[in-house]
Amino acid sequence: MKLVRYGQPGREKAGILDRDARVRDLSGVHPDISAETLARDVLDELRSIDPETLPLVDATERIGPCVSDVSKVVCIGLNYRDHANETGKPIPSEPVLFMKATTSISGPYDDVVLPKDAEKGDWEVELGLVIGEKAQYVAEADWQRYVAGYCVVNDVSERAFQVERGGQWVKGKSSDTFCPLGPWLVTPEEIADPQALALTAEVSGEIMQEGSTRDMIFNCAEIVSYVSRFMTLLPGDVIATGTPAGVGFARNRFLKPGDTMRLSVAGLGEQRQRVVAHEDRIR
Amino acid sequence: MKLVRYGQPGREKAGILDRDARVRDLSGVHPDISAETLARDVLDELRSIDPETLPLVDATERIGPCVSDVSKVVCIGLNYRDHANETGKPIPSEPVLFMKATTSISGPYDDVVLPKDAEKGDWEVELGLVIGEKAQYVAEADWQRYVAGYCVVNDVSERAFQVERGGQWVKGKSSDTFCPLGPWLVTPEEIADPQALALTAEVSGEIMQEGSTRDMIFNCAEIVSYVSRFMTLLPGDVIATGTPAGVGFARNRFLKPGDTMRLSVAGLGEQRQRVVAHEDRIR
Repeated sequence: MKLVRYGQPGREKAGILDRDARVRDLSGVHPDISAETLARDVLDELRSIDPETLPLVDATERIGPCVSDVSKVVCIGLNYRDHANETGKPIPSEPVLFMKATTSISGPYDDVVLPKDAEKGDWEVELGLVIGEKAQYVAEADWQRYVAGYCVVNDVSERAFQVERGGQWVKGKSSDTFCPLGPWLVTPEEIADPQALALTAEVSGEIMQEGSTRDMIFNCAEIVSYVSRFMTLLPGDVIATGTPAGVGFARNRFLKPGDTMRLSVAGLGEQRQRVVAHEDRIR
Repeated sequence: MKLVRYGQPGREKAGILDRDARVRDLSGVHPDISAETLARDVLDELRSIDPETLPLVDATERIGPCVSDVSKVVCIGLNYRDHANETGKPIPSEPVLFMKATTSISGPYDDVVLPKDAEKGDWEVELGLVIGEKAQYVAEADWQRYVAGYCVVNDVSERAFQVERGGQWVKGKSSDTFCPLGPWLVTPEEIADPQALALTAEVSGEIMQEGSTRDMIFNCAEIVSYVSRFMTLLPGDVIATGTPAGVGFARNRFLKPGDTMRLSVAGLGEQRQRVVAHEDRIR
């Protein structure tokens, strides 16, 4: 099952992909893809629906972030060996956690806006886990019970804000539009092995990142278990599981207005964003 | 005006203090103290009500965190010179930002629960700013327009999680009950000078912190302006503005089950918490 949200920002409605990957209107059955939607019984109810019986959504509709009501976005830093190496940091002995402000969440095709004073905008393609059930002190063996689905995350960063302005990474991770989610929330039965998914990121036609979730230092089971020892995860919360090598920071190539990004995780669809300057943001 | 929320967790209702500091039931006028309540026109409407005309709330009711719908808790690290010194860190040249998970928010008299494996629980009394209006790129001169009120924040921390487990501070700042807010949300007309408020924290009868908001390195105007350049602040968001010297980390004295905390900021009321082990948490 591939769930989507479509419509203007803040007024998105629930949709579901049909067998031809067209969006069907699910809002007659369930209004939105939100925290309540991710409960096991609600997802089971949605699975019983034949998308072909639902109204087609106009293909020009905007696609929003694939889940609403996100109370937190938790990210795992330096979780691919090649990426840790390229940043010059040691391989972490336990997961590095940081957060992005939830106000940074945007749709998978929305413009990414470089904030005022940005110098070093950067991309990071990641596998996102969307929590389906309140999670505290989860045993590694039980992790899948707490994950309602997967999505692509672009953990957009401003490296000067992140590392040259004093203090903690959140400063460079939280600008508006710095967290495109989607296009789809893909439920687990569609993903045979979440630790064998190819990830790619392309910037203005150049392939920058090519990796596999196989190369995570801490896998999904370890991540869900670990994070749930330090904070309570709620339905709708997103964990971005880290990025492979190839970020701009290591290439000394940063995002500039006019760049385009394409990011994909196998089976989870593709994001495409145009990069714009703050002044050019269309409101 | 001193607004409060009373009732069981997740089912709090709006209240307001009368002239004898008793809680009156405001829920007949407005259901909760949430993001919408903080709009200027709503606050003005509440100001026009004489609390003495409202029903008295039973004094045994639990007092909840003083605002709901908090989308983020942003904290300013090392914002008092004496505290920066006691941690052995340099005086920051610009504000240090970090976040606490919103799931850490609790009521001002709720137990503070030391998480499993906790070794170094710690207190931090802080002046909290509660945002009333969406804030982006705020000029320092305009900061007061964006602040709906003030409250006491205890930025409870687990120092081993924060600094000995790899990575970013959020790991030691986000356990459930690590962010008591309140007791009151005090609107600005009651606070003549937010940069001249005494702060105190007492642990099991011993005064640990005695400071004044006068000694902030970055004042409220600078903080609101600065944070709003790195992320969008929404109504209900809380900024904890930093803590003066005297934390457990610097004293090598950490919280243990059975400790009690009393924290106050002049004019904003007093928090009191009992410290309990995770196993002893009453659910």
